[in-house]
Amino acid sequence: MNNQSVGKQSIKFENPPVIISQASVVGEMEGQGPLGSYFDQIETDPAFGQESWELGESEMVRRAVSTAITKSGLEQDKIKYIFGGDLLGQLIGTTFGLKDFNIPLFGLYGACSTCGESLSLAAMTVAAGYAENVLAVTSSHYGGAEKQFRFPLEYGNQRPLSATWTVTGSGAFIVSQTNGEKPMLQYPRITAITTGKVVDYGVRDSLNMGACMAPAAADVIYQCFEDLSMKETQFDKIITGDLGKVGSEILIKLLKDNGYDISRQHMDCGVNIYNNEQQDTHSGGSGCGCSAVTLAGYIIHNLKQHMWKKVLFVPTGALLSTVSYNEGQTIPGIAHALVIEQKSNTP
Amino acid sequence: MNNQSVGKQSIKFENPPVIISQASVVGEMEGQGPLGSYFDQIETDPAFGQESWELGESEMVRRAVSTAITKSGLEQDKIKYIFGGDLLGQLIGTTFGLKDFNIPLFGLYGACSTCGESLSLAAMTVAAGYAENVLAVTSSHYGGAEKQFRFPLEYGNQRPLSATWTVTGSGAFIVSQTNGEKPMLQYPRITAITTGKVVDYGVRDSLNMGACMAPAAADVIYQCFEDLSMKETQFDKIITGDLGKVGSEILIKLLKDNGYDISRQHMDCGVNIYNNEQQDTHSGGSGCGCSAVTLAGYIIHNLKQHMWKKVLFVPTGALLSTVSYNEGQTIPGIAHALVIEQKSNTP
Repeated sequence: MNNQSVGKQSIKFENPPVIISQASVVGEMEGQGPLGSYFDQIETDPAFGQESWELGESEMVRRAVSTAITKSGLEQDKIKYIFGGDLLGQLIGTTFGLKDFNIPLFGLYGACSTCGESLSLAAMTVAAGYAENVLAVTSSHYGGAEKQFRFPLEYGNQRPLSATWTVTGSGAFIVSQTNGEKPMLQYPRITAITTGKVVDYGVRDSLNMGACMAPAAADVIYQCFEDLSMKETQFDKIITGDLGKVGSEILIKLLKDNGYDISRQHMDCGVNIYNNEQQDTHSGGSGCGCSAVTLAGYIIHNLKQHMWKKVLFVPTGALLSTVSYNEGQTIPGIAHALVIEQKSNTP
Repeated sequence: MNNQSVGKQSIKFENPPVIISQASVVGEMEGQGPLGSYFDQIETDPAFGQESWELGESEMVRRAVSTAITKSGLEQDKIKYIFGGDLLGQLIGTTFGLKDFNIPLFGLYGACSTCGESLSLAAMTVAAGYAENVLAVTSSHYGGAEKQFRFPLEYGNQRPLSATWTVTGSGAFIVSQTNGEKPMLQYPRITAITTGKVVDYGVRDSLNMGACMAPAAADVIYQCFEDLSMKETQFDKIITGDLGKVGSEILIKLLKDNGYDISRQHMDCGVNIYNNEQQDTHSGGSGCGCSAVTLAGYIIHNLKQHMWKKVLFVPTGALLSTVSYNEGQTIPGIAHALVIEQKSNTP
């Protein structure tokens, strides 16, 4: 074991952990979107058979975790820790979704960047030898998030074109150790991570979160390139979480100003998950579930099919609460980057 | 580096990380309590010179982090990561308190157990060689927490005797690597950790959180003893976070039923931080800040003075939000345990 702390904000793994199993559970609208065929489960009931959106989100988390464990073929007690989080106050989606699993929990909050945070800590934990297998899970729910952060759906307010649409979805991943005896070349490997800082450009519009998050995404991608001595052309895709159309344009401009042109490699999960023409989702999808289900469904599929060999996965988060927002505070952003690679079949 | 994953939920550190610096910033009432003389800063303005309780909490976090860094003698850029969290929705106390530090952040939520969660991840990170120094910080604020979780203070509601009083306080810790060349025997060492599960005994009373958290505390302490092959008599103190009087009695009974009598070693930060006779705080203190400032002030003082050699520090959390509570859900608990030791002066 000789993991390297590299540069200001990054870690390079000597024995990169692998994602041996992943699961995505989504709502009806996500199932009808362009990525619908990549998801494990599509549920047409917004409450997932429960009494409320919040309990529905917990049920979605429970299903994603169960499915990931089943697909891995591992017994549940072989998973030492769960790293999990969601958007709701005090992480109730996660708490009530996980309470029957009997696995130690590290609760996380990084707004919609939480998928990156959870996978980073999961990779750090297994690469250090603290556990053979851990699980990372994140979720969001359109009804619960709109009710909490903006307006209850019943109010029927108008949404500006810069607004994003919270994804109803949960993505779960089992991250496992590799060593000499079991290289596990068939699985995607997390080879490095760059952890982001809180970046505040003074944006105050909760209906334009792409603009809040783009500076944080630019900051962590720039630092990742610097720390790891890499550049944009070494990646097949550079995939942000939920900047949407508005935020993606800002990101590309900010990085171009700093010497990196990612316009050819860039893709945003929020832009890809819906068909805005038909689904009227404005700037695109958002939420902890957006990047999580896109990774679990579409991205890992393309890696395993060898369409992509190396991607930079950068979930992005807008750090606001209704309290801070109503008290006139800014909305800072945060983003975390992971280098995910797939070895080619031929040795 | 040969850290051991031991038992179901624990890690033993081969080169235990040390707490090289700590700081505690509290409100007036905590300053007037029995531990007042141990705190670094006592602020008489509940808003800490800001416009709101929430911004006051952020200012308190900023001061705790600044003080811990100053006391360590380290340059700020030698601290690679911050592990931080608080009780407010979407961690706004932490976000706005840390946004000017320019240090990568892992945001955490484990209710009042977050101090244990942050120190556990901090210790795991430095013991694995990912960073030389990291910082862990947690906070809570009486005004902000009551407004969010129960009733606004202006309402002047009556509180039952089982209710706890949220501590206004923030504790910050710098956790650093040790190795052969710099054993740093003068500092308290985190030698092992046990990470807790969500434990739900079906309690539904948000004004009796001790009863919600005691089963989780009993669960993690029991598992710690089993995983590490230790027993209660090997500790000078077994210190829970904020069970209060009511929860402490339940904890002692639950562990006695399972073969461990911790009644002689047990101490609860929530019971110790106020003088209930004079301060009318009912069951005791609670909140992320409660265990954090007690550790940063009182506990580390006693370790460094060699009054105690080995303690088990177990911050405890009640996993509720107003949404889950008002929708009739239970209040599950979680707790995380750390073994903290001080070497004696004589070699």
